[in-house]
Amino acid sequence: MIETNGKKIFDAVGADAVFTTCEYLKRYVTGFLTEGGFVISDQDGTTMYTDARYTEAAEKRLAGTEVRVAEMDRFENSPTALLRKYKTVGIPFEVTTYPEYKKLEEAGLTLVDSMPAFRECMSVKNGSELAAIARACDIAEEGFLKLLPEIREGMTETEVAALLEYNMRMLGAYSVSFDTIVAFGAHAAVPHHETGDAKLKFGDEILIDFGCKVDGYCSDITRTFLFGDDGKHAEFKKAYAAVLTAHELVKEKLAAGMTGGDGDAIARDYLTAQGYGNYFTHSLGHGIGLNIHEFPFVRRGGKDILKNGMVFSDEPGVYLAGEYGIRIEDTITLSDGKVKSFMHKTDRNLVIL
Amino acid sequence: MIETNGKKIFDAVGADAVFTTCEYLKRYVTGFLTEGGFVISDQDGTTMYTDARYTEAAEKRLAGTEVRVAEMDRFENSPTALLRKYKTVGIPFEVTTYPEYKKLEEAGLTLVDSMPAFRECMSVKNGSELAAIARACDIAEEGFLKLLPEIREGMTETEVAALLEYNMRMLGAYSVSFDTIVAFGAHAAVPHHETGDAKLKFGDEILIDFGCKVDGYCSDITRTFLFGDDGKHAEFKKAYAAVLTAHELVKEKLAAGMTGGDGDAIARDYLTAQGYGNYFTHSLGHGIGLNIHEFPFVRRGGKDILKNGMVFSDEPGVYLAGEYGIRIEDTITLSDGKVKSFMHKTDRNLVIL
Repeated sequence: MIETNGKKIFDAVGADAVFTTCEYLKRYVTGFLTEGGFVISDQDGTTMYTDARYTEAAEKRLAGTEVRVAEMDRFENSPTALLRKYKTVGIPFEVTTYPEYKKLEEAGLTLVDSMPAFRECMSVKNGSELAAIARACDIAEEGFLKLLPEIREGMTETEVAALLEYNMRMLGAYSVSFDTIVAFGAHAAVPHHETGDAKLKFGDEILIDFGCKVDGYCSDITRTFLFGDDGKHAEFKKAYAAVLTAHELVKEKLAAGMTGGDGDAIARDYLTAQGYGNYFTHSLGHGIGLNIHEFPFVRRGGKDILKNGMVFSDEPGVYLAGEYGIRIEDTITLSDGKVKSFMHKTDRNLVIL
Repeated sequence: MIETNGKKIFDAVGADAVFTTCEYLKRYVTGFLTEGGFVISDQDGTTMYTDARYTEAAEKRLAGTEVRVAEMDRFENSPTALLRKYKTVGIPFEVTTYPEYKKLEEAGLTLVDSMPAFRECMSVKNGSELAAIARACDIAEEGFLKLLPEIREGMTETEVAALLEYNMRMLGAYSVSFDTIVAFGAHAAVPHHETGDAKLKFGDEILIDFGCKVDGYCSDITRTFLFGDDGKHAEFKKAYAAVLTAHELVKEKLAAGMTGGDGDAIARDYLTAQGYGNYFTHSLGHGIGLNIHEFPFVRRGGKDILKNGMVFSDEPGVYLAGEYGIRIEDTITLSDGKVKSFMHKTDRNLVIL
């Protein structure tokens, strides 16, 4: 059965009602993705107000859950009319627009922030969420393994991305979890390179940062490898070994109860000691769930406490502008206090095609 | 050269400065896509504040334009510190969160809404925007034509979507413009069907709603066709003819100066006269640009005036729950007062594979 979180969020917020219009938060509360509409949870349960496009599918999918489906009527059941009977209403400030907020405030409601409750609940994944992420990671890895023998000299970055995305789709992915980054050669030195028309040459390094969605949940993985060895990669290989060690050190040493800052420091201290500190230009990682970037953030000085059931990335990187870029990323979770990676199929050691 | 719109927006808003954090609005102002950061336009020009991940690429791409690139430093150049020298600052209320608004208000700034100016400027496309949309439409059509002979009995909806997306990517699309909808048989009766594991059978109808992005700009197209004719499609064919006529009537009769409501009525009145009024359960169309759904909205009673250079969809549909669904959609524009379709390659007449 579909997993819903209306009661969980209602209890955590502690207001008379919780009102949600944000797409991914509605998805979390109801287990069902809709565009437009809104969701209200109170002590009697959760109601999803949606338009005619979704009612049929929603009723079918949500039968037997705590979530009732109601068709929106912009006159009869406007949010403010429906909320009037409550005193305090929880809304997620961070994703509520100023006009939305003002409208509710002017209706005389006392508004409290539901975002901390959402962040807290959503960051610790339950069994079915972990299963969806595990499947999204499996598909990403399998799609990548199928891609490797398909890579040919002269292919463009876009063509490699197209093949990889096709493989993931055919394996059952619903969509990519973000725009696939494929970077050849020195393009890899740009952490957020825009995949383009560059053609693959013998000896190029290839950096691929990608992921897919299963049941709404994301995977995120980066692999860096060589398309043949032209003998000019001594510096690259040295840096690769350092990034790999930093990546593995995190898996070894990170533990539940540490802060995001502690986690980031495991990789950063090592890379700094190896002389790469200035070239690790981003954070170690970010939470992964219904969003590709969410709470917790595993970054320098970060105070978020890392807990069992949280899912985030372990992605140290080293970038030398105009030369090379290396990033090695797994989606990981904390289980029994320790790191467990979702990636089991692809090599993290340097692959030379 | 890359097209930027900083001065255009600054002039249209009329405040001392225009401050933008929203991703697609920043993309419109600077012509460059970044995650995080912000953009400030004033009488001296436009500055994009971004983090280390983007500075190199941004400087390269924006050289010679009105846009300067500055690296963000969260202490030295926080938005509020930078905005302090202005009296009135334009921000887009509709996409500004409540905490963002409050922070700027508390800094003593007089805030005015920049969203009407953005909506107005962005809705009328310039030459390079129209060219990007035309290319995105070409690729969508070519990808679809390549797909048709690849469709086989027993394929799943997801596999058909995967093939189509692969074709578009290989033709140069940067990504899909939204999650591809592939619906077999009665699934087509759900306008926003979630592409799934259903297997294609002889005689099934197939509805595909899809599009891709080129240079950030979207295409949107829907085709409905039959996978063989099992002789049970008399009602479907009758409805198909009605939807097609409604679609073509819009192209014939819609003219610059009409409202969105007028446009919607052209299709709706015809379908109503044919007895399908209650089964056309959504709007005729929506604006298309950097977003797949944007201003103007071509819907029942809509007051938006349709102008030359606007780009929107013409997508009447008829849906009979449990039976069939038909939608025929082109991305169109107004030029010299009249409708011009971007779709030239695919058939709108009923195709039977």
